[in-house]
Amino acid sequence: MHPSELRALLQQVASGATDTAEAERRLIEALRAQPFADLGFARVDHHRTFRHGFPEVVLGLGKTPEQIAAIAAEIVSRGSTLLVTRATPDAFEAVKRAVPEALYHPDARVITFQQRDVTAGAGQILIVAAGTSDLPVAEEAARTAELMGNAIDRLYDVGVAGLHRLLVELPRLDAARVIIVVAGMEGALPSVVAGLVAVPVIAVPTSIGYGASFGGIAALLGMLNSCASGVAVVNIDNGFGAANIASLINHL
Amino acid sequence: MHPSELRALLQQVASGATDTAEAERRLIEALRAQPFADLGFARVDHHRTFRHGFPEVVLGLGKTPEQIAAIAAEIVSRGSTLLVTRATPDAFEAVKRAVPEALYHPDARVITFQQRDVTAGAGQILIVAAGTSDLPVAEEAARTAELMGNAIDRLYDVGVAGLHRLLVELPRLDAARVIIVVAGMEGALPSVVAGLVAVPVIAVPTSIGYGASFGGIAALLGMLNSCASGVAVVNIDNGFGAANIASLINHL
Amino acid sequence: MHPSELRALLQQVASGATDTAEAERRLIEALRAQPFADLGFARVDHHRTFRHGFPEVVLGLGKTPEQIAAIAAEIVSRGSTLLVTRATPDAFEAVKRAVPEALYHPDARVITFQQRDVTAGAGQILIVAAGTSDLPVAEEAARTAELMGNAIDRLYDVGVAGLHRLLVELPRLDAARVIIVVAGMEGALPSVVAGLVAVPVIAVPTSIGYGASFGGIAALLGMLNSCASGVAVVNIDNGFGAANIASLINHL
Amino acid sequence: MHPSELRALLQQVASGATDTAEAERRLIEALRAQPFADLGFARVDHHRTFRHGFPEVVLGLGKTPEQIAAIAAEIVSRGSTLLVTRATPDAFEAVKRAVPEALYHPDARVITFQQRDVTAGAGQILIVAAGTSDLPVAEEAARTAELMGNAIDRLYDVGVAGLHRLLVELPRLDAARVIIVVAGMEGALPSVVAGLVAVPVIAVPTSIGYGASFGGIAALLGMLNSCASGVAVVNIDNGFGAANIASLINHL
Amino acid sequence: MHPSELRALLQQVASGATDTAEAERRLIEALRAQPFADLGFARVDHHRTFRHGFPEVVLGLGKTPEQIAAIAAEIVSRGSTLLVTRATPDAFEAVKRAVPEALYHPDARVITFQQRDVTAGAGQILIVAAGTSDLPVAEEAARTAELMGNAIDRLYDVGVAGLHRLLVELPRLDAARVIIVVAGMEGALPSVVAGLVAVPVIAVPTSIGYGASFGGIAALLGMLNSCASGVAVVNIDNGFGAANIASLINHL
Amino acid sequence: MHPSELRALLQQVASGATDTAEAERRLIEALRAQPFADLGFARVDHHRTFRHGFPEVVLGLGKTPEQIAAIAAEIVSRGSTLLVTRATPDAFEAVKRAVPEALYHPDARVITFQQRDVTAGAGQILIVAAGTSDLPVAEEAARTAELMGNAIDRLYDVGVAGLHRLLVELPRLDAARVIIVVAGMEGALPSVVAGLVAVPVIAVPTSIGYGASFGGIAALLGMLNSCASGVAVVNIDNGFGAANIASLINHL
Amino acid sequence: MHPSELRALLQQVASGATDTAEAERRLIEALRAQPFADLGFARVDHHRTFRHGFPEVVLGLGKTPEQIAAIAAEIVSRGSTLLVTRATPDAFEAVKRAVPEALYHPDARVITFQQRDVTAGAGQILIVAAGTSDLPVAEEAARTAELMGNAIDRLYDVGVAGLHRLLVELPRLDAARVIIVVAGMEGALPSVVAGLVAVPVIAVPTSIGYGASFGGIAALLGMLNSCASGVAVVNIDNGFGAANIASLINHL
Amino acid sequence: MHPSELRALLQQVASGATDTAEAERRLIEALRAQPFADLGFARVDHHRTFRHGFPEVVLGLGKTPEQIAAIAAEIVSRGSTLLVTRATPDAFEAVKRAVPEALYHPDARVITFQQRDVTAGAGQILIVAAGTSDLPVAEEAARTAELMGNAIDRLYDVGVAGLHRLLVELPRLDAARVIIVVAGMEGALPSVVAGLVAVPVIAVPTSIGYGASFGGIAALLGMLNSCASGVAVVNIDNGFGAANIASLINHL
Repeated sequence: MHPSELRALLQQVASGATDTAEAERRLIEALRAQPFADLGFARVDHHRTFRHGFPEVVLGLGKTPEQIAAIAAEIVSRGSTLLVTRATPDAFEAVKRAVPEALYHPDARVITFQQRDVTAGAGQILIVAAGTSDLPVAEEAARTAELMGNAIDRLYDVGVAGLHRLLVELPRLDAARVIIVVAGMEGALPSVVAGLVAVPVIAVPTSIGYGASFGGIAALLGMLNSCASGVAVVNIDNGFGAANIASLINHL
Repeated sequence: MHPSELRALLQQVASGATDTAEAERRLIEALRAQPFADLGFARVDHHRTFRHGFPEVVLGLGKTPEQIAAIAAEIVSRGSTLLVTRATPDAFEAVKRAVPEALYHPDARVITFQQRDVTAGAGQILIVAAGTSDLPVAEEAARTAELMGNAIDRLYDVGVAGLHRLLVELPRLDAARVIIVVAGMEGALPSVVAGLVAVPVIAVPTSIGYGASFGGIAALLGMLNSCASGVAVVNIDNGFGAANIASLINHL
Repeated sequence: MHPSELRALLQQVASGATDTAEAERRLIEALRAQPFADLGFARVDHHRTFRHGFPEVVLGLGKTPEQIAAIAAEIVSRGSTLLVTRATPDAFEAVKRAVPEALYHPDARVITFQQRDVTAGAGQILIVAAGTSDLPVAEEAARTAELMGNAIDRLYDVGVAGLHRLLVELPRLDAARVIIVVAGMEGALPSVVAGLVAVPVIAVPTSIGYGASFGGIAALLGMLNSCASGVAVVNIDNGFGAANIASLINHL
Repeated sequence: MHPSELRALLQQVASGATDTAEAERRLIEALRAQPFADLGFARVDHHRTFRHGFPEVVLGLGKTPEQIAAIAAEIVSRGSTLLVTRATPDAFEAVKRAVPEALYHPDARVITFQQRDVTAGAGQILIVAAGTSDLPVAEEAARTAELMGNAIDRLYDVGVAGLHRLLVELPRLDAARVIIVVAGMEGALPSVVAGLVAVPVIAVPTSIGYGASFGGIAALLGMLNSCASGVAVVNIDNGFGAANIASLINHL
Repeated sequence: MHPSELRALLQQVASGATDTAEAERRLIEALRAQPFADLGFARVDHHRTFRHGFPEVVLGLGKTPEQIAAIAAEIVSRGSTLLVTRATPDAFEAVKRAVPEALYHPDARVITFQQRDVTAGAGQILIVAAGTSDLPVAEEAARTAELMGNAIDRLYDVGVAGLHRLLVELPRLDAARVIIVVAGMEGALPSVVAGLVAVPVIAVPTSIGYGASFGGIAALLGMLNSCASGVAVVNIDNGFGAANIASLINHL
Repeated sequence: MHPSELRALLQQVASGATDTAEAERRLIEALRAQPFADLGFARVDHHRTFRHGFPEVVLGLGKTPEQIAAIAAEIVSRGSTLLVTRATPDAFEAVKRAVPEALYHPDARVITFQQRDVTAGAGQILIVAAGTSDLPVAEEAARTAELMGNAIDRLYDVGVAGLHRLLVELPRLDAARVIIVVAGMEGALPSVVAGLVAVPVIAVPTSIGYGASFGGIAALLGMLNSCASGVAVVNIDNGFGAANIASLINHL
Repeated sequence: MHPSELRALLQQVASGATDTAEAERRLIEALRAQPFADLGFARVDHHRTFRHGFPEVVLGLGKTPEQIAAIAAEIVSRGSTLLVTRATPDAFEAVKRAVPEALYHPDARVITFQQRDVTAGAGQILIVAAGTSDLPVAEEAARTAELMGNAIDRLYDVGVAGLHRLLVELPRLDAARVIIVVAGMEGALPSVVAGLVAVPVIAVPTSIGYGASFGGIAALLGMLNSCASGVAVVNIDNGFGAANIASLINHL
Repeated sequence: MHPSELRALLQQVASGATDTAEAERRLIEALRAQPFADLGFARVDHHRTFRHGFPEVVLGLGKTPEQIAAIAAEIVSRGSTLLVTRATPDAFEAVKRAVPEALYHPDARVITFQQRDVTAGAGQILIVAAGTSDLPVAEEAARTAELMGNAIDRLYDVGVAGLHRLLVELPRLDAARVIIVVAGMEGALPSVVAGLVAVPVIAVPTSIGYGASFGGIAALLGMLNSCASGVAVVNIDNGFGAANIASLINHL
């Protein structure tokens, strides 16, 4: 039973549309249900929405297409919105057989199926990307944030080597309630953005770069050591994680 | 001219308490002022409050007591609240001569002087610390958040080796609008906390530990790789940084 | 001559079923045998069972299928139980030609052939895995522990982001004599498990994760720095090694 | 109420020495007690003995002498055995004022006070050290294991550069139920020891060495990559941790 | 014989002020001289000016005051300009006894004695520092560049968190022929500066920062991965090295 | 409008070839134009030539062939010289369809199309490579430097293991205004070269080597720690970056 | 002219078989020849035998088959013995076309062609390998040492987990003049071997292992920190380098 | 009984100076003696000279002065030459009380006492140091090599930034049978030296340098990746280890 179903039931009781006996019966049934479904290889956490505001998300990495499809079917069967990240086309083929309405976004490598269990965030989340090569991570953040009920805006290829490309967009920076900044190489963009605004900045280092970028370590360290305040960092290439905390903030 | 002074002036004009000529004179004077004060060794950023909601904070590390005191005097002279982090007792001696009202909090290693330029945050920030040894960092976060206008709550020594110490405090977790989790060693506490709540968690790795904790790297990596969603990370021992972004979130 | 054969021979002498001359002849023959078989590219250690309680195990990594098959044949020819870890399907094809009774477990990447030289352990070994992606390592541990004569139980996908999935299984935790905990990402699960039980926990970091998980370093460091006591750690992805020491403990 | 007190109470009820009303009263009182004592800066976990078989141990690192003394007094007040690790002489001075019976072992840097709540282990734990410089860590392990109720034996300065010093001691290796091997530099000793015995080996890397030993990383990696089976590893210099899991094994 | 002496001699011959016999005698004497002076513990390279345009510079690190003084005396005795970097006050005491005209610059930790063997550079070298804490490194660069014959300008505390402090100084950026940018923490300033100018930028990472700045590694990696072109990097805290190559460029 | 077009226009006005009204019209049109072209996935920086002396260069890494071709077409359409680095043959196929005159240099992995907007440098840039395996990086530097208007010379396979191969080429070292030194393995060549000349040396570490070369880290560290002065370093394998700063120096 | 040709010529002069005029002519011709052959992409060092006792060796890594073949032909044309390491089958195909007598050793990945310019070493070089997986590196060492004129012996799969396999071979250890020890994983074997003998031990770490072996770093650190004396280390997997210095020692 | 005593005894028997009964008595006594002396905290290895050609050496690091003195006394009592490395003045004070003839060499941080049990090496060992700051390590090597019976030569401050300082010393390079090269910073000197000679080069990285030298890692990696052949490496700052293997080579 999703929080929204619970709320609806109580309103029906209050309005007399449902009598208390029926409500009691349905509530007991819900309380009896295990808080997770045990598939053997996975325990799908059906209380996640209660505790965290959004259903369990499936990380596609390291799971077989069959495992992903089975978990996806379980999630959707409870009326929950589906999000699979790091999904390959093969994984999508398997999921589509189990959940025909699922969509695939190859630019973001995510599978989605929106249901009615998501509430809208208060403001806009702006996703800023330093370079064209950072787009897959930026898009993972954008698709995730959107699915979680947030209005989003995108501002791409505004790296610090050509500051004017960013400075002409100050109004869009000011319009955001939370800003996700995605950058590889030296990862300097979050520092510059955070120096210009008064909202939280979630920084995502990407593995873009070569040589001494060391798969994103340079950008990660740059962001952790940001001389600007108001910046917190998620894992390398973790567009999903950035969108998740940004959405929590935007739902406060 | 602080944003609050600006607002007050405009209200006085609207109410007729100040005439437009006087208002014009004071606004021109403000606009003429340089956006920073150049002390030679430092350029104190007096527009920080406009852009960022809180005046420039002084990082005590690597500055001489004399430099710190000069910067502090400059900040206070503009009516801004003073915060010096990583401050030694020597630095406080120098600051006190320049700003007699300044206070020193040795547990948090910060110097503060509260003025009237700070607005109150919307909810409560909870600071959770895994162990007794993490207190200096937790206190830096607590003092910073408090000075920035936030109500705070403290929950200390609730590491994951004795989960019941944390689980009995679920109501306090639920009461927070943002949670700062401070932990050294394996840094597992933010994952556990984030799995229990639906608000953003700002994780602060500390350099507490020995051997393969490598000055906080183990905790930092643990937090960046958190399997729970809703976590973002700041630099090792950076209690100030965590409080800063938490305050931005709490002021949304 | 396996320890069990030696014991049997001495009992036959004691009961008179075998006379001392015959026993002497067979013992001298055994003592004359070299303690290892030199295949040129490998020296198969036939005294391992005497010293260590289980015959030499073949690490498949970096050996050709032909080398693996030759070593396997040598081991089996002495009546020893066969275990090949990190075995590819190609390696199994080669082994099957030399040892037709050998079995392949693709989920665990091991080749096994059980003979009668293994004794039973005293209690049960529980294998706990944090996520679905950790299963290959968990299964390597499970198959190894089983082959070494231990009763095993499996508890999979109980990561710390949804603690209730673990807490409902306390009875199974309490039923174990040794617990192997397999986890990637931040590797926090061993700390939580060890905080709940009074038996030794063998922690296995996996290379599951991305970005700053650095191929398992994050999980490894997390486990080494566990704030819970009663945890010791083996190499990244080393399910075999964890099962081996767990089996030694369970045979005490 | 310690497990031993609980057992005694039930035996008194069974024998009639205590009536059920009194037993009920005392049990309710015990159940009412919080499972931990909140000192503000620390939450002393009084259920540790129930869950883990030994009371909470105090890590001296990063705590003030006053904090350590307060925690020590709390532990001792419940009849629990006291162990403070990484204790400085200053910390001992403070503890002695609160717990006059406490002892200090400078070679091991631990403070101890043995009470009657500890049960005896089944066999002997052997502590092996590679060099004279590893003694502080070896002694921390030895004192901890002893306090936890285990018979111990010590075998020091038997590094692999002079194998005969180790090989003449095979009978003492064979006499142990668990072996703790402490080594710095290349950390090769656990591999050699584990190749000679059939009991679990707990390896402790030490920070002894210079240059590319990197504060114990070389020894740690050596032990994690041991080609011998039956080895698990604890954190660098973590003699306490090794003794703790060794004691759990020896109490099975 | 310095290049300037050689040039003067040849001009005297051309003008008749010196006859060829005398010139020949002096040139032969110069050619006979060893290209270095062997002090046992050091071989002072007296051909450095010929090959490199500036005499050998003494790195004070790891040398005793007596060794530094002896080398300094040797250099000065040949008419060469003296520069000792990383010099302690003790080293200066020793040098002053041998070279009474030597000066000490404690802010830059250098000892200098200017002689007439240095030629003037073509333009101005600008030294930009991100924060007040970077001043010792910036001053080492400034003093070195000055001693090598370059006009210099200083622009301090213009970190990227307050871009306007830098952007108001574009004319000073444009006036430079080479720019040295000194920064710690995330090391983003060289990228921003290089994006604004068309002259070479020499980036100097400093060890300023804490936590995951790792003694300057974060800044170093940030600079090596700069997304702006026209940046090359020297060692952490190596203000001298930056000034040296900047001076070579400014002398082209 | 390129700087050269601007100069030409002003000269025409001065000579009367263009009247001021027409000049005014064209200048206003130029000023109205956005300083960049927004392609959605990229913002092509058309002011780069004004600020930096050379148009924006396209890093091929991490972009699709279609994205590269679109950016290339945009650059060429403004009369700018085209340089795409790290270009695959596939990328060239796409670019050739959009810019038929483009050339591909497979040895250097760059796509080029020279237009008339580049000015000539003052002297010669010498590219020195330690070994045959370093040629791809050396050629990237050579092609870049050439396209940017510099005369170049190549000196390949002169590693320090056979010094005479380098020492016979001193005249070519002396003829250069800037030297780029490309080396993998221990990266010692820049130190030796810088010890022989009085011009700036730009060092490029390559990822050539094996084992403990760690993908170029050994060479990078070697170059950063060069005991010779006059060396600055760019990122591993970054032939383009070295050529870029060398060209800026050569254009002073 | 090889040293052996030079010696022969002088002996002919001494014996009168060649007159001094002819000898002078041939010597002048030899002295006139460049000390290297410039192939454009490579400078083949023909003086290597004079300086180093063995002709230049070709590292196959990072060179095209055509480049390798051209260098090989140049070396062989001067009568020098050919050794190409890290050679692929493709490289051998190309070399065979240029040097039909060349041989390929796939187990060692080397191409060889023995000529008469190599002198014999004084004693025997023993190559010891810890495991079967270390054989490719061990064979690279064996083939190299053999080609350089040394008698060799092989002792494979004698890792420290089964010491008796090594201890039965003490006579072969004692028979060696130099010992090369090849080991992956924890790299403990060189310490044990060096503790048993009085000859130099050259240790070669291999990249064999998994998890925290980090491509050979664990073994490398283990060997550098060897507690046994008489050990020096070469690069990871560098069988060639070990054989080279071993051969120099054996030729003393 | 030292090997030299054994030899002397047998010669006396052969010459009749000692009768066989007496010789037998003394040999039995020697064989009965334990091969090591157990001091509790240390097992002094008295067979080291037999196995390794030189008595056990005491590493001073991590031992108390009392422990060092006791071990020293034990070694000297058997007629063995004493060498204590990394010895502090305090350690020397303690040793002098036990072994009055012992000498202290503060430049090399070693304590020595030469007895008659050392044989002379065949040739000369040359110790080359790159800079004045490397002298402590170079002197540790020099004193060790001398004590082990080798003729030595020293060549200091010949770093690659001024090659002529080295090239004028080719005759001294050619005169050596083994060369030890000590260098910090980029560690390039061993490559250059090994390219000039045909004898084995033992490279010692030192921790001299700053910034990205990382305590000697830069030099260590440089030496491991040497492009010159004939180089093997010992641990950072390990002058003793280099001298030890150099002495073994020189005694062949």
